[in-house]
Amino acid sequence: MTDKLQLISCNKVHSGELRRYKHQASSVNCEMTFAVFLPLQALNSQGESLPALYWLSGLTCTDENFSQKSGAFKAASELGIVLIMPDTSPRGCNLPGEDDSYDFGSGAGFYLNATQAPWSEHYRMHDYVVNDLPELAEPLFNFSGERSISGHSMGGHGALICALRNPQRYNSISAFSPICNPSECPWGNKAFSNYLGNDRQQWKEWDASELLGKATDQLPLLIDQGSADEFLQLQLKPQALISAASKADYPLELRMQSGYDHSYFFIASFIEDHLHFHAKYLK
Amino acid sequence: MTDKLQLISCNKVHSGELRRYKHQASSVNCEMTFAVFLPLQALNSQGESLPALYWLSGLTCTDENFSQKSGAFKAASELGIVLIMPDTSPRGCNLPGEDDSYDFGSGAGFYLNATQAPWSEHYRMHDYVVNDLPELAEPLFNFSGERSISGHSMGGHGALICALRNPQRYNSISAFSPICNPSECPWGNKAFSNYLGNDRQQWKEWDASELLGKATDQLPLLIDQGSADEFLQLQLKPQALISAASKADYPLELRMQSGYDHSYFFIASFIEDHLHFHAKYLK
Repeated sequence: MTDKLQLISCNKVHSGELRRYKHQASSVNCEMTFAVFLPLQALNSQGESLPALYWLSGLTCTDENFSQKSGAFKAASELGIVLIMPDTSPRGCNLPGEDDSYDFGSGAGFYLNATQAPWSEHYRMHDYVVNDLPELAEPLFNFSGERSISGHSMGGHGALICALRNPQRYNSISAFSPICNPSECPWGNKAFSNYLGNDRQQWKEWDASELLGKATDQLPLLIDQGSADEFLQLQLKPQALISAASKADYPLELRMQSGYDHSYFFIASFIEDHLHFHAKYLK
Repeated sequence: MTDKLQLISCNKVHSGELRRYKHQASSVNCEMTFAVFLPLQALNSQGESLPALYWLSGLTCTDENFSQKSGAFKAASELGIVLIMPDTSPRGCNLPGEDDSYDFGSGAGFYLNATQAPWSEHYRMHDYVVNDLPELAEPLFNFSGERSISGHSMGGHGALICALRNPQRYNSISAFSPICNPSECPWGNKAFSNYLGNDRQQWKEWDASELLGKATDQLPLLIDQGSADEFLQLQLKPQALISAASKADYPLELRMQSGYDHSYFFIASFIEDHLHFHAKYLK
């Protein structure tokens, strides 16, 4: 599969390499870009096998925000974890209105499979993240077969739903400031009604609080949420996830972090904790 | 002086605060913006006295690049060092051509005091960094009186010339990929001829390789330079600084880092080393 990848750039960082690739993706029927951080251990062809952590970014982001702002590469180098960082949506598909909003269309794929035309032809980010991207990115190094997933805001929602829908494919889940109950918040209502239509029963298949309540396989799950997050009450609603976890006896660790907001400075403050959390379950 | 500061934003990060301020600056005769990272120890009004590290950014940057991309705050928190991060030039002064080039005018102040009209009215970044900014920023916390300086590329040049011209004001100097001999490279030639005029004798007062050769006071000096830096041969010329240090018996540690380029990924890889280097001389 890797002969389909076109290298865009490569930067040495913390003794490893940050590479960006573009490629045609069958799941979303367009050209996509992703980034991968390969620690030094992954660059040695006789090297040890390494696990992967997928990182899903939030609204308006590309593959670049996390690699530039999170400060994750030092700990990933030390722990020997490959980081795989997709874009947040298809782009340039010439769909009506795709670039009109920051919270719908380009930069706002919500990591689901759209069922409504015209979005359903391209906006299938769930299948891209869960199936296409591993097939393309994991042959780039000696992959151990172990993967976990994390993300921020819309990407925290994405990490939760990808892993809760496919628990056999991931070892652990974490999220920063995730949209926990998208069926019941403005961002989710806008995205789900356009991507999935108005049958709210369908929405439950892409809502972490609904999925977690029905989960049969349990994965280790860590969430960090800033108490000064400007989107906490209206959009993120961690109380819905706590309530579902309580009812389902799902082992959720949610840390309310005093005074932190929704920005990448919050992620940078705790990303090492998340890498160490995943490392426990990736070896 | 701090009543002249207007707070633009404040983000909690690594238990401390990143604050951005704007203010009128007499040295440059316009409104300026700077950022300061205050570790938790600085937020306690009965707190210990803390030293400051000034960070000077490179061409095209604002005060934000370093705070978003360097990953410096964790080590600054642990070491108890305040970071002070100015913009790279005056802005919005309505000078002819000020926004026409990436390497001259806005975003390209070169940390000198211009002598040529119309630039001399505003482009006095040396005086801003060395005098104005400390007067404004250091009263924001219980300042120990100890300061050091660092920077990248044009900002590495800036750190070198500010400290070599004012060795009594700084405890140590470091730089990433500095422009070491601006009198003899295209970036420096363009900036110096416009800001300083065509008398190359005047240029020597703002050229680190010239200043270091004449230095009477010696400061600890660490430089990191990537071997894959795309500007190494044409613009940066570390060999001039090495030659000057050798002749003057100035204790320069220059580390050629194999495979690293000119980007912030290089800075992120070694910024903790630089903070630990300065910490040795700031206590």
